[in-house]
Amino acid sequence: MARFLKAKKEAIGLSPYELRFLGEQKLDFVKLRLINYSEDQLEERELASISEIKDFQSEDAVSWVNIDGLHDTGVLEELIAELQIDKLVVADVLDTHRRPKLQEYENCLYVSVKMLQFDDDEDQITSENLVLVFNNNLLISFQERVGDVFNPIRERLRKNKKRIRSSNADYLAFALLDVVIDNYLHIISRLGEKIEDLDDELIEKPSSDSLVKINTYKVEISYLRKIIKPCREMIQNLCRLDSELIDESIQVHLDELRHNIEQANEAVDNYREILSDQLNIFHTTVAYKLNDVLKMLTIFSVIFIPITFIAGVYGTNFENIPELHYKYSYFIMWGIIIITVLIMLWYFKRKKWL
Amino acid sequence: MARFLKAKKEAIGLSPYELRFLGEQKLDFVKLRLINYSEDQLEERELASISEIKDFQSEDAVSWVNIDGLHDTGVLEELIAELQIDKLVVADVLDTHRRPKLQEYENCLYVSVKMLQFDDDEDQITSENLVLVFNNNLLISFQERVGDVFNPIRERLRKNKKRIRSSNADYLAFALLDVVIDNYLHIISRLGEKIEDLDDELIEKPSSDSLVKINTYKVEISYLRKIIKPCREMIQNLCRLDSELIDESIQVHLDELRHNIEQANEAVDNYREILSDQLNIFHTTVAYKLNDVLKMLTIFSVIFIPITFIAGVYGTNFENIPELHYKYSYFIMWGIIIITVLIMLWYFKRKKWL
Amino acid sequence: MARFLKAKKEAIGLSPYELRFLGEQKLDFVKLRLINYSEDQLEERELASISEIKDFQSEDAVSWVNIDGLHDTGVLEELIAELQIDKLVVADVLDTHRRPKLQEYENCLYVSVKMLQFDDDEDQITSENLVLVFNNNLLISFQERVGDVFNPIRERLRKNKKRIRSSNADYLAFALLDVVIDNYLHIISRLGEKIEDLDDELIEKPSSDSLVKINTYKVEISYLRKIIKPCREMIQNLCRLDSELIDESIQVHLDELRHNIEQANEAVDNYREILSDQLNIFHTTVAYKLNDVLKMLTIFSVIFIPITFIAGVYGTNFENIPELHYKYSYFIMWGIIIITVLIMLWYFKRKKWL
Amino acid sequence: MARFLKAKKEAIGLSPYELRFLGEQKLDFVKLRLINYSEDQLEERELASISEIKDFQSEDAVSWVNIDGLHDTGVLEELIAELQIDKLVVADVLDTHRRPKLQEYENCLYVSVKMLQFDDDEDQITSENLVLVFNNNLLISFQERVGDVFNPIRERLRKNKKRIRSSNADYLAFALLDVVIDNYLHIISRLGEKIEDLDDELIEKPSSDSLVKINTYKVEISYLRKIIKPCREMIQNLCRLDSELIDESIQVHLDELRHNIEQANEAVDNYREILSDQLNIFHTTVAYKLNDVLKMLTIFSVIFIPITFIAGVYGTNFENIPELHYKYSYFIMWGIIIITVLIMLWYFKRKKWL
Amino acid sequence: MARFLKAKKEAIGLSPYELRFLGEQKLDFVKLRLINYSEDQLEERELASISEIKDFQSEDAVSWVNIDGLHDTGVLEELIAELQIDKLVVADVLDTHRRPKLQEYENCLYVSVKMLQFDDDEDQITSENLVLVFNNNLLISFQERVGDVFNPIRERLRKNKKRIRSSNADYLAFALLDVVIDNYLHIISRLGEKIEDLDDELIEKPSSDSLVKINTYKVEISYLRKIIKPCREMIQNLCRLDSELIDESIQVHLDELRHNIEQANEAVDNYREILSDQLNIFHTTVAYKLNDVLKMLTIFSVIFIPITFIAGVYGTNFENIPELHYKYSYFIMWGIIIITVLIMLWYFKRKKWL
Ligand SMILES: [Mg+2]
Ligand SMILES: [Mg+2]
Ligand SMILES: [Mg+2]
Ligand SMILES: [Mg+2]
Ligand SMILES: [Mg+2]
Ligand SMILES: [Mg+2]
Ligand SMILES: [Mg+2]
Ligand SMILES: [Mg+2]
Ligand SMILES: [Mg+2]
Ligand SMILES: [Mg+2]
Ligand SMILES: [Mg+2]
Ligand SMILES: [Mg+2]
Ligand SMILES: [Mg+2]
Ligand SMILES: [Mg+2]
Ligand SMILES: [Mg+2]
Ligand SMILES: [Mg+2]
Ligand SMILES: [Mg+2]
Ligand SMILES: [Mg+2]
Ligand SMILES: [Mg+2]
Ligand SMILES: [Mg+2]
Ligand SMILES: [Mg+2]
Ligand SMILES: [Mg+2]
Ligand SMILES: [Mg+2]
Ligand SMILES: [Mg+2]
Ligand SMILES: [Mg+2]
Ligand SMILES: [Mg+2]
Ligand SMILES: [Mg+2]
Ligand SMILES: [Mg+2]
Ligand SMILES: [Mg+2]
Ligand SMILES: [Mg+2]
Ligand SMILES: [Mg+2]
Repeated sequence: MARFLKAKKEAIGLSPYELRFLGEQKLDFVKLRLINYSEDQLEERELASISEIKDFQSEDAVSWVNIDGLHDTGVLEELIAELQIDKLVVADVLDTHRRPKLQEYENCLYVSVKMLQFDDDEDQITSENLVLVFNNNLLISFQERVGDVFNPIRERLRKNKKRIRSSNADYLAFALLDVVIDNYLHIISRLGEKIEDLDDELIEKPSSDSLVKINTYKVEISYLRKIIKPCREMIQNLCRLDSELIDESIQVHLDELRHNIEQANEAVDNYREILSDQLNIFHTTVAYKLNDVLKMLTIFSVIFIPITFIAGVYGTNFENIPELHYKYSYFIMWGIIIITVLIMLWYFKRKKWL
Repeated sequence: MARFLKAKKEAIGLSPYELRFLGEQKLDFVKLRLINYSEDQLEERELASISEIKDFQSEDAVSWVNIDGLHDTGVLEELIAELQIDKLVVADVLDTHRRPKLQEYENCLYVSVKMLQFDDDEDQITSENLVLVFNNNLLISFQERVGDVFNPIRERLRKNKKRIRSSNADYLAFALLDVVIDNYLHIISRLGEKIEDLDDELIEKPSSDSLVKINTYKVEISYLRKIIKPCREMIQNLCRLDSELIDESIQVHLDELRHNIEQANEAVDNYREILSDQLNIFHTTVAYKLNDVLKMLTIFSVIFIPITFIAGVYGTNFENIPELHYKYSYFIMWGIIIITVLIMLWYFKRKKWL
Repeated sequence: MARFLKAKKEAIGLSPYELRFLGEQKLDFVKLRLINYSEDQLEERELASISEIKDFQSEDAVSWVNIDGLHDTGVLEELIAELQIDKLVVADVLDTHRRPKLQEYENCLYVSVKMLQFDDDEDQITSENLVLVFNNNLLISFQERVGDVFNPIRERLRKNKKRIRSSNADYLAFALLDVVIDNYLHIISRLGEKIEDLDDELIEKPSSDSLVKINTYKVEISYLRKIIKPCREMIQNLCRLDSELIDESIQVHLDELRHNIEQANEAVDNYREILSDQLNIFHTTVAYKLNDVLKMLTIFSVIFIPITFIAGVYGTNFENIPELHYKYSYFIMWGIIIITVLIMLWYFKRKKWL
Repeated sequence: MARFLKAKKEAIGLSPYELRFLGEQKLDFVKLRLINYSEDQLEERELASISEIKDFQSEDAVSWVNIDGLHDTGVLEELIAELQIDKLVVADVLDTHRRPKLQEYENCLYVSVKMLQFDDDEDQITSENLVLVFNNNLLISFQERVGDVFNPIRERLRKNKKRIRSSNADYLAFALLDVVIDNYLHIISRLGEKIEDLDDELIEKPSSDSLVKINTYKVEISYLRKIIKPCREMIQNLCRLDSELIDESIQVHLDELRHNIEQANEAVDNYREILSDQLNIFHTTVAYKLNDVLKMLTIFSVIFIPITFIAGVYGTNFENIPELHYKYSYFIMWGIIIITVLIMLWYFKRKKWL
Repeated sequence: MARFLKAKKEAIGLSPYELRFLGEQKLDFVKLRLINYSEDQLEERELASISEIKDFQSEDAVSWVNIDGLHDTGVLEELIAELQIDKLVVADVLDTHRRPKLQEYENCLYVSVKMLQFDDDEDQITSENLVLVFNNNLLISFQERVGDVFNPIRERLRKNKKRIRSSNADYLAFALLDVVIDNYLHIISRLGEKIEDLDDELIEKPSSDSLVKINTYKVEISYLRKIIKPCREMIQNLCRLDSELIDESIQVHLDELRHNIEQANEAVDNYREILSDQLNIFHTTVAYKLNDVLKMLTIFSVIFIPITFIAGVYGTNFENIPELHYKYSYFIMWGIIIITVLIMLWYFKRKKWL
């Protein structure tokens, strides 16, 4: 399936309320993790089923339920039943190929975004669809597989950082989005470093290897852009949103998110242009070097072709070639050759080829 | 006629109320199909004439009339007479080359869109103009020929999916548009797969065949873009529309449509850029390989041209060439030749051509 | 004078009220034609002078005065005097090089647009400035020369098409603009057909003739764009206009105009991109074929240059060349030559040049 | 100093109220000219000092003070003192490298714009910063040197054109801006003519001279664009401005200005694109012609290289070459040569090179 | 780390309230400088600790505290404690890689911008993050290292320029931003000069050195654009801001800032396009010169290859070559050679290669 757009045939014409998983199954189990916290306490726990959540929920604590693995619609139906999440919301979660969006529902906010991680072992970017559904004291995060970028947030929760522990789920949602976008920035800057390093290589020793690199980086940057542009639109909508579920005090942090995604977007655009420039420079350098190669060929050919012809003429075996018998003919031939060569050299000098 | 814009001479200066078919006739009959449904019942039937519809219409049921074939203005005049559709609306349906649009009329909404299907047999995209005219409990769909993408919707109606059976015609209109746009996404992703596969081919073994592919895909992507851009504008207008004919509960679904067409639009733009990049990479690769070819030619020429000249000189038949008679002349010539070659090789080494 | 912008030196610093003709005179007479119509009657007549109009005007009839030829300021002064047209309006009509615009005056609307026709005899597009000035029951159309695209409208008027005969001058203005824009679409589609036909030619047999065509079409498309873009702006303003002179019932038709000019604009943009793509494909194809040409040259040169040198060496006339006297030398030389050639062929095979 | 942006080191960090001349001094004197007019009288006079203006000012007359030369801050301080012009306004006038702008001050409007003239003697465009400061009955125009484009306006004033003589300073300001923009249009159309003439030259006989022209025109068009784009922004602001200093009756004229600068802007954009297209066509034509050159080289080389080799082989001096002694060998060699040539010719024919 | 985007791994997931320095430490001390001024007095002093500020603050004086070096969070915590600056504000200051922004806080405005200086010694542009935090009578400027562009402002303060000494901190903030942007303009104009000088060089003697220059300037211009674009956005927000901390009288100066940053932005865009044009011209010139080189090679080859072949044929040693024995054969051969050459020359003349 294409990397830039995935649209399965099975997805065509589905009811928006139909609970069918439309992504690729990446786990063979579903993992439910709960972090329940308030200013004074924090409880972390793996859950066997959604219904256990009820045991922890209380009005003055925030529950963060993280679900890894979306292929089991049974779990999701339980979610609908136990937590009064609209069926429409859950059906949406199941299409992991949708573009990032923000949707306001009656009793919750729905935010989806692509979570990027740099896999140091494989030296490549991996992408995963992330959905956050939250109201005042409950946030559910839906992930395609185990593993995410949220450990710094979990640490802050555990270390009783006052701000995050005493705020509502809206602050947690901001913190999660913030770390997602911080990762975008970090990944772009890592790719950017490689791109900027290409610059010197291009004029000094342009090789077919540089071309492969330019192409590879271009595809990566295009891929990042495809992910960042709709995310930026979503963050802008989030900043403009007027919802009871988002406290006024969060606005300054959302503005910060907007600045960060804007910076990511600008950086991606800049690097895209830099790569285009690099390709143009490479092409022109190659064309310029070709000129050099062909000047050399032309100089040698133009100098030697006429004098080789002269020698050829006197290599013929005609019986009657008067010049052959004159004593100094051979030396005169050399004279003519040398004069011819000197004229050619002077000509090339004047043309500034030499 | 051109594929990107069709504008017949006969269409010039027509009254907007004139019922004249301006498309290409693709059927030699007109097929009328009715699906009449409410929460409790569903009736499917092929109609002989428009007037039969009256037998089925009732206030609490929705009638979906599908018309395949638009060349018979008699049928359409009947429509105007029997169903109180404005003549202006029907005249508009007859120009199948118009761009997608949304128009509000006094008693109905008019939505036109291009319906794309991927014809697996012929391995090509086929396009057909689709018009939906609907009010609360009547939806008429106008098609150019038999065959459409609506079977998933018919199945949902037949299987008594609660939501669709208990909603008004606005929900049916949304469902039909949704399946049209889902098909856009699917078609783009199929084309996209081929485009992404080109990437490796381009640097490893660029052939004239790759060039043909790039060109073909570029034309297809441009064609998709021509269809998607005005459709996106239409969907945006639909989202912003404030009409009694669209229930508030539909808004969330229209927003989903907008997200999908936005994704289609972004994907098409991305693929267009990827193809441009691919063409640039191809061109530069070709230029780079030319350098290689000509370096080889130049190396061989520059090395052999001087030594061939030397041999030529001693092939002349002058009577008096003193060198010829010296015993070791031949070996000295070889010496000079070898030294010349070594100098040349050293020179090319230093230039990093070897 | 340049085709894309005409700005005469005489036009500089003129008072906006000065009646001076700033176009090129294309007629040596002025032709005044009147069509006066209401629901029950229609009168068509050529007028000798503006003052005759008064004889026909009545409150319940619409008068369409068409003026061909704008060089005679006498006629125009009469117009100002007899019909209470503002001097500013008439002065504006006289500068036929202005861009299309909409201007609201106290007692009339002023609309200017470029009227394009395809001259089948000369196989070229001709352009003419058209100005429409109208209030409720009078419309004056100003043309640079005899001949226009309005015959379908005159036919509709004569055939007593109910709608146009019973409406005010605003509907006539719409009908005239509609036919102008329908002609844009038709002309673009004719040019578009030629452009799309180029596509196959470009990869199969790119010739200098294809290049001439690409260039010619590019200039034509740019010219069309120059005319369509400001026209589109004008139509958008017309749709947004809130004037007593335009009846509410006309809005749906103006929206149609906007859709048509939008389609023209998109088509022109599409064709412009297609032509750019074609030029790039052409360039790359040419570069690719060059590679082929030079591979052949290089293969032949690289194979024959060394073996020609070998033959050259044994064509020298040194007295003492031991190899010459050995019985099988000649055959050994052939052996060396054949081995050399085989090595070269193997080398080129490995490089995939053969 | 750069032509596209001039920013002197001395300008850094200056107080906005500091009267320091930041342009290049182009005169060694300051020339003050006054035209004082009302409906019944006009007085033109050169002034020795600003204070003389007071003698002419009256409530029902308009005074147009034109100042050529801005280096003498004494004159400008007098202006501030005598005419109650804000110091901020005058300080702004002194930085002649600023971009065009509109600024509303408490008692006056400030409009700056670049005045272009085509110097027919030198065959080049000259630019000069023009500032207009005006209230109801006073307009001060600041110029860098003697000589401007305002003579048509002065003529209209002298000839008692009713409109201009009976209006306030706002109409005069409009008239001056109008003539400035008319000159833009004229200059673009002159340059445009040359650009359009290039078109034929490019395909028929592309020379290095065409390249020089393309480059020169590109720089000129870029320069015009740099001047026109901010001017257009300024005119748009002027049209939107709601100031007591601009009478309602002027609005229609300002709209005209906006149309003219829009036309200038579009023309510059069009010509820029045309020049880009021309460069691409030139480049592709050159590449195509290179193909021709190299096809010829390859045909000759490929045909003659093998047969020259054959002749070379039989020019060797081996003692034992059996073929040499056979009576018809020479003619057989010719036969082989001719067959080789024919095969090559047939091959090139099939490849459509011939 | 990349120059166009710096995003440290440590920054990921930090609480927005965490005081951690995220830039590169450029000093090993922190330098605190205070300028305290009112209309009548000015006091300049280096501070040992933040707490000393209190000694100088009074209601009718403005205190400008400048902090060079941000690595010492102790100093910053003191700032929070002593001056009631929000912790959020100070945490933001510590991430020196953020893009320029404007943020309104409850009791202060936060403005960040990149300060550019041209280092004449090193012949390169240096960038430093600058943050201004201010309320009515206190402005704190945060810098990464000692050295800035503010000396002209300090001079104006010391020389008792009335306006700056009698205004609030908002005017000081404007003056500081003004000098930052003036430096942008100056730096662009210096780079621009070099770019414009390239123009002649490119057509007359394009060398690989020109290519290096184009590339270098392109990177510099891209870097300037990356810095200027978000700064422009920030200034636009500042102009639109409605805050009690900015006096109405400052608006005219903010508008001036907006004009200046707009001019910087346009200049950078212009130079970017000029550089792209220059690269295209360079490429095309190189291609054109290649044509020249290869025409010469082809002319020489095509003329000499056939006649060298003829000579070769008569150099063969066949026993029976009848022509060799005819008395005038040699001269006839010369005749044929000369005729061949003349035909070739005529042919090249006709093709306009000569
Ligand atoms: Mg769907
Ligand atoms: Mg959904
Ligand atoms: Mg996706
Ligand atoms: Mg996406
Ligand atoms: Mg995960
Ligand atoms: Mg942009
Ligand atoms: Mg029509
Ligand atoms: Mg219609
Ligand atoms: Mg169409
Ligand atoms: Mg369309
Ligand atoms: Mg169909
Ligand atoms: Mg909406
Ligand atoms: Mg766009
Ligand atoms: Mg004018
Ligand atoms: Mg006018
Ligand atoms: Mg025009
Ligand atoms: Mg006409
Ligand atoms: Mg409208
Ligand atoms: Mg300044
Ligand atoms: Mg100023
Ligand atoms: Mg300027
Ligand atoms: Mg002047
Ligand atoms: Mg206006
Ligand atoms: Mg206005
Ligand atoms: Mg545009
Ligand atoms: Mg952060
Ligand atoms: Mg922060
Ligand atoms: Mg930065
Ligand atoms: Mg930045
Ligand atoms: Mg500093
Ligand atoms: Mg403002």
